[in-house]
Amino acid sequence: MNSPHPIFFDEIIINALKEDFGRAGDLTTEALVEKGIRGTGRIIAKQDGCIAGLEIATHTFSLLESDSEIEIMVPEGDSVSSGTVLSVVNASARTILAGERTALNLLGLLSGIATSTQDVVKKVKGYNTRIVCTRKTTPGLRALEKYAVRTGGGFNHRFGLDDAVLIKENHITVAGGLANAVRGVRSRIGHLAKVEVEVETLDQLREAVKEEVDIVMLDNMSFETACRAMEIVDGKVMIEVSGGLTGEDAKKYASIGADIISMGSLTHSSPVFDVSLIMDPLNGSR
Amino acid sequence: MNSPHPIFFDEIIINALKEDFGRAGDLTTEALVEKGIRGTGRIIAKQDGCIAGLEIATHTFSLLESDSEIEIMVPEGDSVSSGTVLSVVNASARTILAGERTALNLLGLLSGIATSTQDVVKKVKGYNTRIVCTRKTTPGLRALEKYAVRTGGGFNHRFGLDDAVLIKENHITVAGGLANAVRGVRSRIGHLAKVEVEVETLDQLREAVKEEVDIVMLDNMSFETACRAMEIVDGKVMIEVSGGLTGEDAKKYASIGADIISMGSLTHSSPVFDVSLIMDPLNGSR
Amino acid sequence: MNSPHPIFFDEIIINALKEDFGRAGDLTTEALVEKGIRGTGRIIAKQDGCIAGLEIATHTFSLLESDSEIEIMVPEGDSVSSGTVLSVVNASARTILAGERTALNLLGLLSGIATSTQDVVKKVKGYNTRIVCTRKTTPGLRALEKYAVRTGGGFNHRFGLDDAVLIKENHITVAGGLANAVRGVRSRIGHLAKVEVEVETLDQLREAVKEEVDIVMLDNMSFETACRAMEIVDGKVMIEVSGGLTGEDAKKYASIGADIISMGSLTHSSPVFDVSLIMDPLNGSR
Amino acid sequence: MNSPHPIFFDEIIINALKEDFGRAGDLTTEALVEKGIRGTGRIIAKQDGCIAGLEIATHTFSLLESDSEIEIMVPEGDSVSSGTVLSVVNASARTILAGERTALNLLGLLSGIATSTQDVVKKVKGYNTRIVCTRKTTPGLRALEKYAVRTGGGFNHRFGLDDAVLIKENHITVAGGLANAVRGVRSRIGHLAKVEVEVETLDQLREAVKEEVDIVMLDNMSFETACRAMEIVDGKVMIEVSGGLTGEDAKKYASIGADIISMGSLTHSSPVFDVSLIMDPLNGSR
Amino acid sequence: MNSPHPIFFDEIIINALKEDFGRAGDLTTEALVEKGIRGTGRIIAKQDGCIAGLEIATHTFSLLESDSEIEIMVPEGDSVSSGTVLSVVNASARTILAGERTALNLLGLLSGIATSTQDVVKKVKGYNTRIVCTRKTTPGLRALEKYAVRTGGGFNHRFGLDDAVLIKENHITVAGGLANAVRGVRSRIGHLAKVEVEVETLDQLREAVKEEVDIVMLDNMSFETACRAMEIVDGKVMIEVSGGLTGEDAKKYASIGADIISMGSLTHSSPVFDVSLIMDPLNGSR
Amino acid sequence: MNSPHPIFFDEIIINALKEDFGRAGDLTTEALVEKGIRGTGRIIAKQDGCIAGLEIATHTFSLLESDSEIEIMVPEGDSVSSGTVLSVVNASARTILAGERTALNLLGLLSGIATSTQDVVKKVKGYNTRIVCTRKTTPGLRALEKYAVRTGGGFNHRFGLDDAVLIKENHITVAGGLANAVRGVRSRIGHLAKVEVEVETLDQLREAVKEEVDIVMLDNMSFETACRAMEIVDGKVMIEVSGGLTGEDAKKYASIGADIISMGSLTHSSPVFDVSLIMDPLNGSR
Repeated sequence: MNSPHPIFFDEIIINALKEDFGRAGDLTTEALVEKGIRGTGRIIAKQDGCIAGLEIATHTFSLLESDSEIEIMVPEGDSVSSGTVLSVVNASARTILAGERTALNLLGLLSGIATSTQDVVKKVKGYNTRIVCTRKTTPGLRALEKYAVRTGGGFNHRFGLDDAVLIKENHITVAGGLANAVRGVRSRIGHLAKVEVEVETLDQLREAVKEEVDIVMLDNMSFETACRAMEIVDGKVMIEVSGGLTGEDAKKYASIGADIISMGSLTHSSPVFDVSLIMDPLNGSR
Repeated sequence: MNSPHPIFFDEIIINALKEDFGRAGDLTTEALVEKGIRGTGRIIAKQDGCIAGLEIATHTFSLLESDSEIEIMVPEGDSVSSGTVLSVVNASARTILAGERTALNLLGLLSGIATSTQDVVKKVKGYNTRIVCTRKTTPGLRALEKYAVRTGGGFNHRFGLDDAVLIKENHITVAGGLANAVRGVRSRIGHLAKVEVEVETLDQLREAVKEEVDIVMLDNMSFETACRAMEIVDGKVMIEVSGGLTGEDAKKYASIGADIISMGSLTHSSPVFDVSLIMDPLNGSR
Repeated sequence: MNSPHPIFFDEIIINALKEDFGRAGDLTTEALVEKGIRGTGRIIAKQDGCIAGLEIATHTFSLLESDSEIEIMVPEGDSVSSGTVLSVVNASARTILAGERTALNLLGLLSGIATSTQDVVKKVKGYNTRIVCTRKTTPGLRALEKYAVRTGGGFNHRFGLDDAVLIKENHITVAGGLANAVRGVRSRIGHLAKVEVEVETLDQLREAVKEEVDIVMLDNMSFETACRAMEIVDGKVMIEVSGGLTGEDAKKYASIGADIISMGSLTHSSPVFDVSLIMDPLNGSR
Repeated sequence: MNSPHPIFFDEIIINALKEDFGRAGDLTTEALVEKGIRGTGRIIAKQDGCIAGLEIATHTFSLLESDSEIEIMVPEGDSVSSGTVLSVVNASARTILAGERTALNLLGLLSGIATSTQDVVKKVKGYNTRIVCTRKTTPGLRALEKYAVRTGGGFNHRFGLDDAVLIKENHITVAGGLANAVRGVRSRIGHLAKVEVEVETLDQLREAVKEEVDIVMLDNMSFETACRAMEIVDGKVMIEVSGGLTGEDAKKYASIGADIISMGSLTHSSPVFDVSLIMDPLNGSR
Repeated sequence: MNSPHPIFFDEIIINALKEDFGRAGDLTTEALVEKGIRGTGRIIAKQDGCIAGLEIATHTFSLLESDSEIEIMVPEGDSVSSGTVLSVVNASARTILAGERTALNLLGLLSGIATSTQDVVKKVKGYNTRIVCTRKTTPGLRALEKYAVRTGGGFNHRFGLDDAVLIKENHITVAGGLANAVRGVRSRIGHLAKVEVEVETLDQLREAVKEEVDIVMLDNMSFETACRAMEIVDGKVMIEVSGGLTGEDAKKYASIGADIISMGSLTHSSPVFDVSLIMDPLNGSR
Repeated sequence: MNSPHPIFFDEIIINALKEDFGRAGDLTTEALVEKGIRGTGRIIAKQDGCIAGLEIATHTFSLLESDSEIEIMVPEGDSVSSGTVLSVVNASARTILAGERTALNLLGLLSGIATSTQDVVKKVKGYNTRIVCTRKTTPGLRALEKYAVRTGGGFNHRFGLDDAVLIKENHITVAGGLANAVRGVRSRIGHLAKVEVEVETLDQLREAVKEEVDIVMLDNMSFETACRAMEIVDGKVMIEVSGGLTGEDAKKYASIGADIISMGSLTHSSPVFDVSLIMDPLNGSR
């Protein structure tokens, strides 16, 4: 998995640094550490899990000081155990201490998402099923959070309202039925946009299959009904299952042939991945 | 609790909308709902908890359409049960459908934090102990997340590196001892900045008390040692307890007189609060 | 065709106004017209064509003065003849005179694109062929220019590098052959992204069809070869024709069954649509 | 002609890259080209013309990757024939492929303007007449487009509403006559701002000359009347001719002594200059 | 004098408010004043002087709360005596208290400049001499500070490096003499840009006159030499006097016929104009 | 004193350069100096005083041209005499000439503030009294101006409305008395925020002392009353004196034991520090 281009996160980091520096910068460090003294900091995993965002997070130090030297010890997407040194940062001690929190906040967030994703992906291993995230992301961080899901072995659903059609219940009501909605949309959209319909009943499902939509989403459907749905669809369209699912649920639906299992929790409720930064003693060299 | 001024979140919302609208806007809604048809959406709690960010989140609709009418049904900080209608939004149907995800993402994030905070605050009720959050916040959202903690009944620790001094182990090493560090800082900072020291041993604690720091933080100290610490300090300085604490831990430390209990998890690992938006059927009026 | 939400163009207009106002504003008007005197300006077509961007362009006046009254006389996408009044603007005379150039520059650009698009769309009328634009757009204006193409009756190809896969010759070389390239991409991308391949020979075409790509693009292929290509594909995949095509070319390729005809010239070389703004005499009222 | 400082275009390029990268970057290239593999791309003219913006456009690659090596083969303002290699870019293959469209869009736009300008400038060669552009520029790109005109041998008229006075018919009406308008303006403006008046009749022309304005603009005046105007002015003030002029028109007016010929079409309707980027085969080295 | 359009200062005010609000807003006011209670504040001059920026400064309150009611009691450029009520602001008490400092900082700065300017302008009354400011302005505030100078009765010199040519000693050296420099520039610049040359000797002055530049600047020339200079020039070109001048100096040079007297101190060293805001007692109404 | 991190001033400089470059850049220099010719400029003090902002100001040249070589000859906060070379800049001659005004404007502003501050700080030497600045700063420049005060030997009061509580007369009225106000605030704010109260009478002072506030501010109190105040307080709380004070006033109040003397004039009315930049003759090398 390749880390995204800095164009996707430079502003996010600068913004976070400004939040943390406020109007006077790092009072404590500036009072105690002379400018120019270089130091070494090690970023260390404090738990087991899957690493995402290491290049992104450590870019914080490069943005603060262009000649920071960053050694990345763990490739994106690798599983690590607690205690692993993830990265070694050599820069002025002030840079390391002032940038530490910003870097770790980003790394903890993204590795937390990757770790949760990997957990679910492992559960559906062996099935031809993809775990995907949703648009339930943190404001301002969608591109990075979706990257973290990919890093954990998942895939992404829509990036926004503009890159595919997803017809929901409200749209069906407004359009006067599912078939009307599908046809109304088809005449308006470009040839690259796929059409997905959220269905709540088997009748709706049959209608969607008849309209040859690209994907149907079974929304909060019971497992039994979902089994029936699989038979009805019979491979003619792609099936997505959605609605407050756990990893165990994911496995169950994968076992009956769901193509896509979407889970908002990957991005909105993954616990942070625990990391810390330890400074080596300074030796006063500049 | 008063909602912050929009100057703190207008850009965050606009940014989130741009993430979601991408380059072509809401393909589905624009194809199916005519411009100008007004609708009504209800934002509904799908779980019990403490509400924070309702004015912030619904401001999304006002930013999309200045004459949106937003009715706030629940004051900030109130506890609600699942099923409660939190807000009623009257605006063009396009505005409601296009802004829904952005609004709910913000509301879920902030109410999730407030709910977790309230849970811990309840546990220390009756003690003279404050639950505070840390700088472990989501990049770009610190001011809002800290507001959510206050809304849940907690308080805030430092907003950044610049509004107080927090001397950590690394600083002590660099400065050649705790007392040196405290004195070095004192001559540099303004008269409004308080000085806190993180201590790991009782000897350090005694040194900190002697230096008359404003606050000592007992970092990852065992309960037994913390009890000893309380006796040593004997009310002379403020005591903060920190380090991967649960709600139950908080109660225990509160019971022995901790003034401040700081918990990073409030902002970095609170699960989202579950909310949804239900549209009333459209009647076609404009 | 619905005008895009102002979130897509507010900044573009503000930016253009700043370019024009410079550091001292409208020297001429401010010296000669008193503040607060209201006036009426009429925006008039100086040629025949298809109108796009009228709401966008006139929003300039609302951004300069929130109580500007804008009357839109012509729906987006309508054909007009020279002399048609497109919009009537009532605002302070200073607002109208200072905002005139910015508004007309936007309107001329977008209606120019819509007019060129409509010309080509008319030529393929009766065929099941879509005219689409490319990523050859003006820096900073892609969303608006693509909207203008849709307004003129065309459709959009990719909005960017991220919303579909387009494998070009360079990619094929790098990946060691077309089939390798297609398979390499398929394992990486989400379930919503379609895969298109640019082919230059009939052998490549057969390989692409075998790999069941979603679309093949015949790039700069002679008409005769394109005819052969149509027979080979035989409706199994979507066919796009591309490469410096004129309206007449479009018609020819449409007649043999091209699904998509892409033309960069729509956005990069359409001549401006000629419009002007005429002020009514002022009567001094405020 | 010197290329402008990057402060004039860095943001424009970053913005254009963001338009193109969207939320997930270059799907195709990232799936097929490994990170770090360097490549070489040649930017090649596909038509004859005058080159402008080569440093600006290729700066795209430097912004994506700071150690890109850019060789500029053709000085700004030089005429080239189709097939000329304009620049050789050595950078990681991903950088070249991802930045290609953004760079070429800028180069095509600016060289298109320079080429059209040069065509007209050649026609007035030998006359003491300057070809100038107007404020009819693309929103957000005025500084660059005006630079392209200069590169093609033209000059610039006003950069905005604030750097000179241009009294138009509407202003004359408002001020109660041309002389009043000129005097009203003169008392308000700084000593560096020149005053130009647009005249439609010879009477107005005489009045303007009497008021000793710096420049008169003959707006949409017939050739015959313009000849009379030249006699009346007799070198006392500078004469500008304007109004939908072609290159041939320019020559005619130059031949009778027009000092300035202004043409909006240079910036608003110049066809793009055709360029492409060809990658050398990769050899896998990093 | 007309106040500039908000497009020139909205961002400056928002930025200043963000500086002042930090990450938690107005702690004191939010703790003590309930949301929604309206109040009235009076902005009062605490010294005599010339008012500039009253609409700009009070716009702060409108930006914080769109239905703030602002009454402007004193026209821009008017002289007031200490104690004058300049503006009455009716808005929520929180808005007034939170915006007070930002508004007063702007008003004090701009009225300070206008007052200093007016003092000098009065001294040269009766002479045909203009007092102008320079490019020695506060970073980010040039347009507003130059407006304040105009409001005080002064005029503006160059707004930037791009709106006129000013050939200084360094340029003369580089170009190999004054005449060379003037000719080198003339062939490159547009027909609207005037050419000014800074001269330090009478020989240079004669050369400049011969080259028919638009303006010569006598830089730090003694009064006696300046008198000689006036005779040499004899009205053939405009004369500017510059170099650390006081108001009394200005009068002296005006008396011998200087057209322009430029003073950097107007913008870089004017003392603030003293203003305060007094709240009426609240009556608790909302 | 350490110069702040560029994150605090990069945007300010870029913004100032854009103000100065306008839409066409440095007309004069670009016409006369060839690109790429390197030169040397010396920044020279034209008066005695205290230097602040030298790294900040000269960063202008690095932002214009990354390989500018900046030699800093005088540490921040040092006193210099007129004629001292402060910095030597080696860069392309165009960079030096184009960036000169922006750099000097910043340096003059900040050294002006530092010089005024140092003057006052010297007057209170020997007393245990701190000279502090206020929130009366130039919009957009607060962090830098407060840094300049520190550089001159002063300290900073509140950075904004959010980093301490300052209860003023208006707040006392609203809250129904001083004690109410103090208590109302205390229950709301975090444990790091200090509470200061502005008092105008000795009764208020006694009430404030009783409420154990952190600081009392004697606002515009006569010297005699202030003497009484000192006796009443008797070291129990910190005393700040404020209100239009001169350096001599500062000394008087320091002599009776004021802890803090706050002076708005340091940031809002310090005269600029006079500096200039002298170019060495160019030798044409590149």
